Amino acid sequence: MEKIVRQSMLYDFYGELLTEHQKSVYEEVINNDMSYSEIAKLNNISRQGVFDMIKRCDKKLEEYEEKLKLVDKFLRAKEQVRKIRECAGELKRMNSDEKLNKKIEEIETYSVSILDDF
Amino acid sequence: MEKIVRQSMLYDFYGELLTEHQKSVYEEVINNDMSYSEIAKLNNISRQGVFDMIKRCDKKLEEYEEKLKLVDKFLRAKEQVRKIRECAGELKRMNSDEKLNKKIEEIETYSVSILDDF
Repeated sequence: MEKIVRQSMLYDFYGELLTEHQKSVYEEVINNDMSYSEIAKLNNISRQGVFDMIKRCDKKLEEYEEKLKLVDKFLRAKEQVRKIRECAGELKRMNSDEKLNKKIEEIETYSVSILDDF
Repeated sequence: MEKIVRQSMLYDFYGELLTEHQKSVYEEVINNDMSYSEIAKLNNISRQGVFDMIKRCDKKLEEYEEKLKLVDKFLRAKEQVRKIRECAGELKRMNSDEKLNKKIEEIETYSVSILDDF
């Protein structure tokens, strides 16, 4: 997984456990893809300060992941939902009963909402 | 939700964020349903000490829930899985095609494993 993608996922799950200041700097990295120099200027801290803070946040987020494994669990749930949708697609191709297919589509909707709720 | 059920769920999700000592005492409460006096004797601490520790753990776990909302998310996922299984049951009653029903059962299996992975 690309580093920025991993950072984004970790932040999605554990971001609330960072301080407000850490959150705002970390968000600038993952959402806006800003350089450390730009973030340093914007927050009136040194480039090294930004570097250290990001490193500290990365470590903290990885420690939470090591204990709670939410990114891991989410990726596994995503894989199960993918399989459910695949089966649903096959079921729809296997029959042409409109009532059955409506029920199958209900299943697809519920399975996708599991990921939305995560 | 009964207090002990809530404590169990919170512990399932955030228990790893407690210290080893807190974990072992908290587990004695939720798993063995032991009284504070029994736990106090077993751990060679006062009954008040146990009481305070449990209260501190409850607070810590609730603070994590407030930020990460995992129990809440899990309960919502459980509800979606319940709906998927309900639809799957209806689909099976709506037809008698063995191939279709096998595929529907696959969906049931995947949906249940989402909760197991949580």
